Amino acid sequence: MKNRNIFRISDLSKEDIEEVFRTAARFKKEVREGNRKFQELKEKTVLNLFFENSTRTRTSFELAGKRLGADVINISIATSSLKKGESLMDTAKTLDAMHVDTYIIRHSAAGAPQLFSKYVRGNVINAGDGACEHPTQALLDAFTMVEQKGTLKDLNVAIIGDILHSRVARSNIHLLNKMGANVTLVGPNTLLPKSFESFGVKVTNNIDSVIESVDVLNMLRVQMERQNDSFFPTLKEYSELYGLNSKRLEKTKKDVVIMHPGPMNRGVEIGFEAADCNRQFILEQVENGVAIRMALLYLTLN
Amino acid sequence: MKNRNIFRISDLSKEDIEEVFRTAARFKKEVREGNRKFQELKEKTVLNLFFENSTRTRTSFELAGKRLGADVINISIATSSLKKGESLMDTAKTLDAMHVDTYIIRHSAAGAPQLFSKYVRGNVINAGDGACEHPTQALLDAFTMVEQKGTLKDLNVAIIGDILHSRVARSNIHLLNKMGANVTLVGPNTLLPKSFESFGVKVTNNIDSVIESVDVLNMLRVQMERQNDSFFPTLKEYSELYGLNSKRLEKTKKDVVIMHPGPMNRGVEIGFEAADCNRQFILEQVENGVAIRMALLYLTLN
Amino acid sequence: MKNRNIFRISDLSKEDIEEVFRTAARFKKEVREGNRKFQELKEKTVLNLFFENSTRTRTSFELAGKRLGADVINISIATSSLKKGESLMDTAKTLDAMHVDTYIIRHSAAGAPQLFSKYVRGNVINAGDGACEHPTQALLDAFTMVEQKGTLKDLNVAIIGDILHSRVARSNIHLLNKMGANVTLVGPNTLLPKSFESFGVKVTNNIDSVIESVDVLNMLRVQMERQNDSFFPTLKEYSELYGLNSKRLEKTKKDVVIMHPGPMNRGVEIGFEAADCNRQFILEQVENGVAIRMALLYLTLN
Repeated sequence: MKNRNIFRISDLSKEDIEEVFRTAARFKKEVREGNRKFQELKEKTVLNLFFENSTRTRTSFELAGKRLGADVINISIATSSLKKGESLMDTAKTLDAMHVDTYIIRHSAAGAPQLFSKYVRGNVINAGDGACEHPTQALLDAFTMVEQKGTLKDLNVAIIGDILHSRVARSNIHLLNKMGANVTLVGPNTLLPKSFESFGVKVTNNIDSVIESVDVLNMLRVQMERQNDSFFPTLKEYSELYGLNSKRLEKTKKDVVIMHPGPMNRGVEIGFEAADCNRQFILEQVENGVAIRMALLYLTLN
Repeated sequence: MKNRNIFRISDLSKEDIEEVFRTAARFKKEVREGNRKFQELKEKTVLNLFFENSTRTRTSFELAGKRLGADVINISIATSSLKKGESLMDTAKTLDAMHVDTYIIRHSAAGAPQLFSKYVRGNVINAGDGACEHPTQALLDAFTMVEQKGTLKDLNVAIIGDILHSRVARSNIHLLNKMGANVTLVGPNTLLPKSFESFGVKVTNNIDSVIESVDVLNMLRVQMERQNDSFFPTLKEYSELYGLNSKRLEKTKKDVVIMHPGPMNRGVEIGFEAADCNRQFILEQVENGVAIRMALLYLTLN
Repeated sequence: MKNRNIFRISDLSKEDIEEVFRTAARFKKEVREGNRKFQELKEKTVLNLFFENSTRTRTSFELAGKRLGADVINISIATSSLKKGESLMDTAKTLDAMHVDTYIIRHSAAGAPQLFSKYVRGNVINAGDGACEHPTQALLDAFTMVEQKGTLKDLNVAIIGDILHSRVARSNIHLLNKMGANVTLVGPNTLLPKSFESFGVKVTNNIDSVIESVDVLNMLRVQMERQNDSFFPTLKEYSELYGLNSKRLEKTKKDVVIMHPGPMNRGVEIGFEAADCNRQFILEQVENGVAIRMALLYLTLN
C-alpha cells in the first residue's frame, strides 16, 4: 500500500482496495476457524482515540488490534481530561511522544484525522470525521458486496436516506465509483441536494423507481440524535417514503443484497421483515468490519 | 459441565458445582503462589457487557479472563452509544458477528442474559440480572463456606436483610438447597414475604432467634441507592433490628462464618467489629470470586 | 531499591534515583528502537486506580505496564460504582484480595496512597495526591534535565507559577534539593508563600530577576479548572507578569532547558514561541514519562 494513513477513500488505489479485500478474507477465514490470536502486530501500540462515542466501531478496532497481538489503549475524549483546553495539535504531539504506532481517530470535525497526522509519526486511520468520510465502513460494505456478487464492476447500488449528513454515504460513493459500480442516491430533497450529481452518481427522491432494479440496497440510519426533525416531517412519513418496508421488499430482485451500517432503527428506515430476511447481510457487514480493520492495521504497518 | 451458559443455579448439577469448586481451588492456589498468567483461553475473546455499573464484579471477571490468557473487552452500556435505540437482540447479534467466545452480562432486567444468549453462539455467564439471580456470587459464597466447613451438607446458613430485592439471596437459596444446607432467611416483613417459604427455607423476622445456632451468617447489603427507605423506617432502626452489631456478634458460635457480598455499609447491616473480626471471610469471598470466575470461564469453554 | 512503595521523593535515596534514571534510559532506548514488548512483568497485575481523571498520566502508566508484559486494569472511580459509600480502606482490602501486584493511585486527598498501602500487599506508586506530591513527574522532569545537562549538581532551576497548589512543584523541589540543584521558585505572593523558603530554596516574585541566569525553566500549568481566579486578577496579567513570552525567551541563556508538565495553556504561562522553540523539552518529558514509569514498575517489583 502506498499510504500508511487512511483518511479518505482517495488514499487507496484500486489495487490497494483489492489487497485489503484479499487480506481481510484471509483474516476472516482464520477467525471463523477459531484462530483469534496472531503475532503480526506484536511489538505495536494501537490507540483508539474517540472524540465521539461509538461502542460498535471502537470495539471492532479494539478486537482487530488485540487479535493481531498489539497493545491497545482506549482514550475516550468525550469523558477525558484531555478535553480541557488542549488543542488537537498538542494532544497529537503528546501521544506521539509515547511512541504509538497506529491511531484510530473518530472526531466530530471533518479533517481532524489529517490535522492530527501532521504531528505524529504513527499511522492514522480515520474512524469517521464529521459528515466527511468513514473509509473503513465503505471498505467493509464493498467487501460484503464483493463476497455476494463477485465484483463491484457494473453493480447497481442504491444508497438510501440522509445522504447530506452521512460520512458513510460519502465514503461509499467514492469507493464504489472507483471500482466501477453504478451508484444511485435516494432521499428527500432536504437530505440529498442535487449537487451530489457532481460525484458522477444518479440522484432521485423516488425509492420505488429503483427498488426493482438494484443489486444492492444500502439503507442508511436515520440519526435521530442529530435532530433531523426539521429535515422531514415525521418518522412515519420518512418510513413510508424511504423505508424498506415489506411491500418494497417484495419488489426487490430475488438476489438483492440488503445492507445497513447499524445500529438499525427497525420500523423506520428498515422494516422488521427486511432486517431479518435471508437477503440482508447486515451482520456479515459487522463480521467483515473486524476483518477489514485487521487487514488495514496489518497492511499499513507492514 | 452440561451447560455452557450459566444463567441460574439450576443450570448447574451438584456434580457441576463440585467440579467448579475443585477447579477454583486449583486456580486459587496457583494465583496465590504467584502464577498469574495461564494459556487456557489463549485464542478466546471474553466480553464484559455491563448494562449496570459494577466496578467490583467487572474487575473480578476482567482479571479472571486476562489471567487465563483471553482478550478481554469491556463495554459499559450505561455510558455507551449502543444505548440509543438498539434492542438487546440487535446488540447481541452485532456482537456475535464479531466472534466473541464468552459474554459476561449484567443487566437490570431479569432474564436479559437468557434473551441475549438466544442470539449469540458464544457462552453467556450471568453477572446479575435484576432481582433474579447472581450465580457466580452464590458459587463464591458457597465455595467459601466449603473451605471453612468442609461441606455444605446440613450446614445451617442464615441470610439476613433485603431478601426481596436480592439476586444474591435468590442464587444462594437455590445453591444451598441443592447442596443440602439448611437455609433460614431473616428480614423485615416488607423485605421478606412469607411466600419465600415455598423455596423450602425457613423464614423469620427475628435475627436473635437464629444468631446463636447458625454456622454461617450472610449479611446482605442494604442497597441505599435503590431507595428502600419505604421498606423500613430508618437505617438506625434497621441496624438495631437486623444488623450484626457487637452484642449479636458475641452470641454467635465460636466457629461461625461471617459473610457479606460487599461493598459493606459499616454500621448498618454489619458493625465495625464484625467486619474486621477473625470470623469474617469477606475478603476470602473476593479472592474466591476471581478463582470461581476463572473456573467457570475455563469449564464452559472446554 | 529500598522501598517498594513510592509515595514521596523522600522514599528514594540518591542512589535509587540514579538507578531509576539508568533503567529508564535503557527502556527509552529499547522503545525508540521499536522494541515495545518485554516480559519483565509477565505474571504481574498492575491496577490504575484513578480517583481523579487524568488521561495523560493514566495512558503513560498503562503503556508502561503493558509494554512490560503485565496485565493492566483501569479503574476510574470518578465514574465508578465503588464510589458509593465504600471507604478507601475497604476498597483497598477488596482489591488486595484479588492479588494485584502494583497499584497506581491518583487521589484528590494528600496522603491517600499511603493510607491505601496500609491495607494491601502489593506495591503502591503515587500518581498525584492532592496538592502534596507527584513523584513520577519530578523524576521524569529531573531525568530530562540530566539528559540535557549531564548532572543536576549545581544546576540552576527556576519553577514558575502556582507553587502553592502544585504537587509537581513540591516533588520537584524535594528531588532537586536532594540531588544538589539550586532551586528558585517564582510566582505571585498569593500562590507562593514565603514559608517555602524553609525548603531551602530561593523565593521571588520577579521572573525577570532570574530569566537570564537559570539553566532550566519549569513553567507550571495555570490550573484554570481549580478556579485560581481569586489568586491573581486576570489571565492576561498573569501572562504578562509570569508567562514565558517571546521577550523573556530572548533573554534566556542560549542553552536553557524549557519544561512544562502539560497540558499547556498556550498564551498564558507559556507563549507559542517558547512552546515550539528548539530549547523546549516538553515532549521529551512525555516520552521520558513512559520510560521512568517502566523503570519504577520494574525496579519496585524486582
